[in-house]
Amino acid sequence: MKKTKENKNRVSGLPVPTIRRFPLYLSFLKVEKNKETKYISAPEIARELHIDSTQITKDFSYINIKGKTKIGYETTTLIDAIEAFLGYYVLRKAFLVGIGNLGIALMKYIEFSNEGLEIIAGFDIDSEKMGMEINDIKIFNINKFKKHFDKTPVDIGIITVPADQAQKIANSMIDCNIKAIWNFSARPISAPDNIIVENTSIDSGLAMIKWKLKIDKPLIYKNRIL
Amino acid sequence: MKKTKENKNRVSGLPVPTIRRFPLYLSFLKVEKNKETKYISAPEIARELHIDSTQITKDFSYINIKGKTKIGYETTTLIDAIEAFLGYYVLRKAFLVGIGNLGIALMKYIEFSNEGLEIIAGFDIDSEKMGMEINDIKIFNINKFKKHFDKTPVDIGIITVPADQAQKIANSMIDCNIKAIWNFSARPISAPDNIIVENTSIDSGLAMIKWKLKIDKPLIYKNRIL
Repeated sequence: MKKTKENKNRVSGLPVPTIRRFPLYLSFLKVEKNKETKYISAPEIARELHIDSTQITKDFSYINIKGKTKIGYETTTLIDAIEAFLGYYVLRKAFLVGIGNLGIALMKYIEFSNEGLEIIAGFDIDSEKMGMEINDIKIFNINKFKKHFDKTPVDIGIITVPADQAQKIANSMIDCNIKAIWNFSARPISAPDNIIVENTSIDSGLAMIKWKLKIDKPLIYKNRIL
Repeated sequence: MKKTKENKNRVSGLPVPTIRRFPLYLSFLKVEKNKETKYISAPEIARELHIDSTQITKDFSYINIKGKTKIGYETTTLIDAIEAFLGYYVLRKAFLVGIGNLGIALMKYIEFSNEGLEIIAGFDIDSEKMGMEINDIKIFNINKFKKHFDKTPVDIGIITVPADQAQKIANSMIDCNIKAIWNFSARPISAPDNIIVENTSIDSGLAMIKWKLKIDKPLIYKNRIL
């Protein structure tokens, strides 16, 4: 039983919370790099990010990064190693479906270019949006999704449509044998096991806050990646 | 040791994954309500949401909802119970800081009104944005944050500024004794234990996708809320 639980929380031998902590480390380390901090120690990172120092050392050892005694980690080496590990150097192209406020925000999100994601086309059901350009990305009719995919295949499909439309859109992506689906709708989507599915739900975050406000004696686990 | 782990995953006796699943149930149940589905069973919900049926029954039992044998749960009763449990009926007011693309998308996010969240003012450092109105919400200078808070206190502070500014903004909120901070920046923020902190990071979702694409033999745990 113990073993099963461990496996469920691991992807390719790595604990999922470890993978989720890497973008946090990156974000912090880049600020330090801009401040021209040459070396940084695990306890220093721990203090700033409120993550246990031994956990940090353990996370870095997964990607074969070892600090020097009394000096710590070289900031740029650490940044490079994490970016390489996460695959940020490999550019992945994406289609986004659902040109609402969130869809537009994601099409304009500047961090994606640093993280190796390029949204190359947007799709919507609303004919008034056809031909529009958002951040130099063209918007097409959703019924042209497969045609565009066949011409320019992408790795990732991003879903920013209302909850009741999400599965339908996911099905179009699955029909194209897309590799990964990133679903921002409130509704989880179903896909075959060989397709990567990631759900990022805004409503889930709000639910936690509202529930904790309601009970009014919240137990906080600061900055824990739940 | 077992007990500590249990406590860390619970808020007020409830498992955190259970709380995070409730918005998913809600989203699904509302679609069913619109289809005039009067009763729904745990196995039916399980099939659609890819969550184990016994887990669903267990989640609902936490909020004292029991289904009828062979009939299941009454859709509207279940919706009402979950909304009441999550505190959606209690309207919480919020200030949002950071009028970029994501900030604007959140100010226009229509689901918030159903979820009992009202953003009543926006703040930014950019003087060109002062006096703007987004979805009838006025934008003010960030240095007027405390003045506005003293006049109209809010429960929730939403942070949508760049990572290197997040802690500074959080500190202004903490100085006002705000009850909860919802942080969308890539950088986790630090706050005293009596303040609720929720981090919703887009970058963390992308990191998971890029890593799984890199290893190219992903182990998928469909729709699991990690």
